[in-house]
Amino acid sequence: MKHTVTFSREGIDAQVKVPTNTLLADAARLIGVEIGQPCGGQGRCGRCAVRVTAGSVRRRSALRLSVEDIHAGYALACQTVIEGEVAVDVPPQEKIERRLTTDRVVAEVTVPQDYDYLRAQTVRRFHLRPNPPSMDDQTDDWSRLQTALRLQHDFGHMTASLGLLQKLGALLRDGNWRATAVIDVSNTLQSSAAARTVRLIDLQPGLVDEYSPLWGAAIDIGTTTVTLWLVDLVSGQVRAQVSEYNSQIARGEDVISRIVFSGKEGGADELRHRVLDTINGLVVTACRRLNADPPQVVKASIAGNSTMMHLLLGIPASNIRLSPFITAVNHLPILAAHEVGINIHPEASVDCLPGVASYVGADITAGVHSSGLDTAENVSLFLDVGTNGETVLGNRDWLVTCACSAGPAFEGAGVVNGMRATTGAIEEVWINTHTFEPTYRVIGGGKPKGICGSGLISLLSEMFLTGLIDKAGNIDPSSGHPRLRQGAHGGEYVLARGHETDTGLDIVITHTDVDNLLRAKAAIFAGFTVLAENVGISLEAVDRVLIGGSFGKYINVEKAVQIGLLPDMEWSRFDFLGNTSVRGAYYALLDWRRRERIAEIARRMTYIELSADNSFYEAFTSALFLPHTDLTRFPSVAEALRGEVEDRATQGV
Amino acid sequence: MKHTVTFSREGIDAQVKVPTNTLLADAARLIGVEIGQPCGGQGRCGRCAVRVTAGSVRRRSALRLSVEDIHAGYALACQTVIEGEVAVDVPPQEKIERRLTTDRVVAEVTVPQDYDYLRAQTVRRFHLRPNPPSMDDQTDDWSRLQTALRLQHDFGHMTASLGLLQKLGALLRDGNWRATAVIDVSNTLQSSAAARTVRLIDLQPGLVDEYSPLWGAAIDIGTTTVTLWLVDLVSGQVRAQVSEYNSQIARGEDVISRIVFSGKEGGADELRHRVLDTINGLVVTACRRLNADPPQVVKASIAGNSTMMHLLLGIPASNIRLSPFITAVNHLPILAAHEVGINIHPEASVDCLPGVASYVGADITAGVHSSGLDTAENVSLFLDVGTNGETVLGNRDWLVTCACSAGPAFEGAGVVNGMRATTGAIEEVWINTHTFEPTYRVIGGGKPKGICGSGLISLLSEMFLTGLIDKAGNIDPSSGHPRLRQGAHGGEYVLARGHETDTGLDIVITHTDVDNLLRAKAAIFAGFTVLAENVGISLEAVDRVLIGGSFGKYINVEKAVQIGLLPDMEWSRFDFLGNTSVRGAYYALLDWRRRERIAEIARRMTYIELSADNSFYEAFTSALFLPHTDLTRFPSVAEALRGEVEDRATQGV
Repeated sequence: MKHTVTFSREGIDAQVKVPTNTLLADAARLIGVEIGQPCGGQGRCGRCAVRVTAGSVRRRSALRLSVEDIHAGYALACQTVIEGEVAVDVPPQEKIERRLTTDRVVAEVTVPQDYDYLRAQTVRRFHLRPNPPSMDDQTDDWSRLQTALRLQHDFGHMTASLGLLQKLGALLRDGNWRATAVIDVSNTLQSSAAARTVRLIDLQPGLVDEYSPLWGAAIDIGTTTVTLWLVDLVSGQVRAQVSEYNSQIARGEDVISRIVFSGKEGGADELRHRVLDTINGLVVTACRRLNADPPQVVKASIAGNSTMMHLLLGIPASNIRLSPFITAVNHLPILAAHEVGINIHPEASVDCLPGVASYVGADITAGVHSSGLDTAENVSLFLDVGTNGETVLGNRDWLVTCACSAGPAFEGAGVVNGMRATTGAIEEVWINTHTFEPTYRVIGGGKPKGICGSGLISLLSEMFLTGLIDKAGNIDPSSGHPRLRQGAHGGEYVLARGHETDTGLDIVITHTDVDNLLRAKAAIFAGFTVLAENVGISLEAVDRVLIGGSFGKYINVEKAVQIGLLPDMEWSRFDFLGNTSVRGAYYALLDWRRRERIAEIARRMTYIELSADNSFYEAFTSALFLPHTDLTRFPSVAEALRGEVEDRATQGV
Repeated sequence: MKHTVTFSREGIDAQVKVPTNTLLADAARLIGVEIGQPCGGQGRCGRCAVRVTAGSVRRRSALRLSVEDIHAGYALACQTVIEGEVAVDVPPQEKIERRLTTDRVVAEVTVPQDYDYLRAQTVRRFHLRPNPPSMDDQTDDWSRLQTALRLQHDFGHMTASLGLLQKLGALLRDGNWRATAVIDVSNTLQSSAAARTVRLIDLQPGLVDEYSPLWGAAIDIGTTTVTLWLVDLVSGQVRAQVSEYNSQIARGEDVISRIVFSGKEGGADELRHRVLDTINGLVVTACRRLNADPPQVVKASIAGNSTMMHLLLGIPASNIRLSPFITAVNHLPILAAHEVGINIHPEASVDCLPGVASYVGADITAGVHSSGLDTAENVSLFLDVGTNGETVLGNRDWLVTCACSAGPAFEGAGVVNGMRATTGAIEEVWINTHTFEPTYRVIGGGKPKGICGSGLISLLSEMFLTGLIDKAGNIDPSSGHPRLRQGAHGGEYVLARGHETDTGLDIVITHTDVDNLLRAKAAIFAGFTVLAENVGISLEAVDRVLIGGSFGKYINVEKAVQIGLLPDMEWSRFDFLGNTSVRGAYYALLDWRRRERIAEIARRMTYIELSADNSFYEAFTSALFLPHTDLTRFPSVAEALRGEVEDRATQGV
């Protein structure tokens, strides 16, 4: 007997006649209605959820669905068969991914609603109309310009580099005594400064449109990844986002090995030039996209951990590594780009954001600000899942922080086929419980080149749930399954075969990779648990978990919990914020009040040194398992494991 | 008949018996009593004046002596014969030169009486004792130092270059958390600045003696001559004085030709490096004398005309030359030495003093301050007898100024055998009226190498008075006198023959040299006369004439008047102040209040542009003669000429 099934998607209906017991997924496929099934129709990922608005269906499995979901008519297309005439709403696939897979991902970068260029921005354009000279008025060019600034814009005094004074006369005459100045007015805005002194950054002949784009760069220097956002300071809009591995990686994967290298003959210079090369490459790439010239970039805000900041500025970092772990400088003055060595406008204001201590730098103060933790009423937990694994706990009244060395695995480095979350990266993996065959999603949709952080989390979790690895992360290649084999780095699982990949080479995950991922997740988990213990707060009391890091776009909380990276709590309490550090730098770039708030965060934050703490080491070793030695701390994972085992049993595995 | 003559000198008596009618000079020579006779015993220079305290003498001539002098017993030893027992006082030769030859020379450089290092100096040493770090206090090094500065010295905030921040950690640890900072505290002293922000120049480990010498440099960049004084900022003492020709001379003798050259491809760069080479050479020479290292020099004050300042700083000078003659910048900010390119401490504060206009620069504002003109009650005239020939007229209530291009002749440049006023320079010349044989004095006393400014003035005057040149400056070699000959540059007078000189070559003055000197003196004379006319002041109303310039030590006012360089007025109204520009820079280097006064002078001074003034050109051409077309303006010279003519007549010439 055949029944009519009506699929409605975004207001368009399509009908198909199919026999009883046809899967909704199959019916949809017949008339070209796309329903995502990342797990390959196993009923495990929940991405194929649709809403049955009329008629009768039978749900074989409702693993992903809450009681409320079922009540509302939701059903998994891959696990639901029709029993009569049925009407089905197919939600937009993007939406359903969000709702059902508990991905709570970074929002698109929107300009802060309160951004007002004229009030918030410290680097602005000003039209200047100095009086032309004559035999009756032989005032010098510079005084003439100062007078124009005072009379036309009410500033007290302007400073300029010798380089600008050298060009002054020609510029003023080229523009026939009409000029456009780019000026840093920081001193006149910040309450701490009494003087109305401003700094000239650039002078152009003639009257340039005051509201045409004025470029600034927000930069995050990670130990592993450097990210740059090119921003129009006038509109506040982010116009280009680029990332690249920090080329210092060639000289050590974590901050400690970098510091050690910097102590060698010529080492500090090499590291400085390596990160400058990376930054300057990103500047060129970003500018090219917008047909802008690097010298048109007149301001930069830089976030990064303290070691990165020291190495960038050529400040010896050795004391960061030696007890009592002292930085040379946490609060840096505004520098000119040419001093730092960044190839934008040589006089551009470069603002290196303030850090707290040796292992809690400006990436965290900026990250905390962009996460909103510092203004939250309830206690929140901020995790930066980067190479250093910093954690902040607190609210608007107090902030404590610690750091632990997680390593670069979640940024795709230190993993054989790891890569950054960019085109060609596998960002999500599902493995068939029975066949061990994988399904994966590639950023950009083409052939895969490697696996990024979110892909690795997802892969690790799938391998664990499907029994490909045990709780200690061991891969057993002796099972004889064609996807499992013995490689140079121990047992390995072949995620994509050469003929499917962009490079023509197999994409695998090795035992060593798994080990690195376990160490990384264990360090982060130990970090926040010990920090919470230290201040006498139970994780249950944490209202929100705010997660920053250079993952892919779609982070699956469930998977992150399953591997024991995140605590097992209600998924709605997690917020994945993406790169919080560059976002904080972006906010600081736009608005001096936000920059002040970051400085305030740096002053307020209490740093707790874990390196000498035995409880940290214990917590770390306990967390070196999937999800943890103590499974009672992960009840939802225990349940999922039972589900999987049952499923395999029913299917006769 | 023989008489006893008793000579008393500085309390010691010597006696000699000589016949009636013996010259006092000859009697003195018999017993080795030195009496200077620069004019060779002609009774013209007045340097051999002695005081007859008892007995009878006959004066053949009393040309140099006033009625009061004769009443007091003064007599010229070369023109006075004994007639009986005589007692004679021989004054110390230095004193008599001062009293009788009307030299009013630059005083030794003494530290201003009111100099108080702690109150006046903007660059000082401070001991800092930051708390050492510990696990309980992980504050960064820089904050630690800031706190020490705030608590121990009550400053608000300190800035430092990236270069210093790079060295900070090592320095603090090397000194075991005891450090000595050299800090520029300008902002906290000057009334205009509200902030208590200071600038770190240097940091040394340990506690260096706060009152050991701290070096600063006062620099005058003349078009022709660069002068540097190395000063101990603690005591205020000038410890070394060095000068050298500005090596830019190779690319033009005056500012206009330098500006023209700077407009050529690479010209500005070359000129900048040439003057930097000269300055840096002087720094090395001065430091070597004191066993100091150039990086120990932590402050410099620079005076110089506007063109020199622009060329030093790489600021295009072209508009200085083009109507309406506009400088790019008169009031410069404090620069760091490395920005300017001076090889002292890279962070040393370099203060380029303020100028007034294109042709009245910081050399004049500094010069006016050091001359005291700006605080004088009565109207005074300030002349800078340098390449630019600037003139200032005024008092504490008003100041007007003008400039005229005099050329470098009075600095010994642009003259065949000219040289700076240094060892080997002929600084004074007397010529025998009858034989035309010269007598000269050489700086340092050795063989002559050339002729300096004061020597040229003296030589020109002598040649004129003895009839070797006519009032238009023509030399007539056809007279057949062995000292006169025809050379490549027209007629010339041989001042010293090869066998008498250091170089083995003749030292001569040529017709072209005389022409250059006449043009130089005419420009200066025209400058101040036209300036006085412009403001409606007669030169008679001028209380004092304050004269700066790179002459030799002994300037003979009489000679300067005789050639028509200075107005014919009472000699006591002239003050020769030497290099007023470097002296002003020295005062500015020591004391911020004096620096403020120089800025005040720059603001107060009214510049009068003479280039378009017909009356200037007329005055100039009238002054191209010796002493002037209008001899009635030089009554004392007219009288001297009559005396010379009579003398020649009596001697049967």
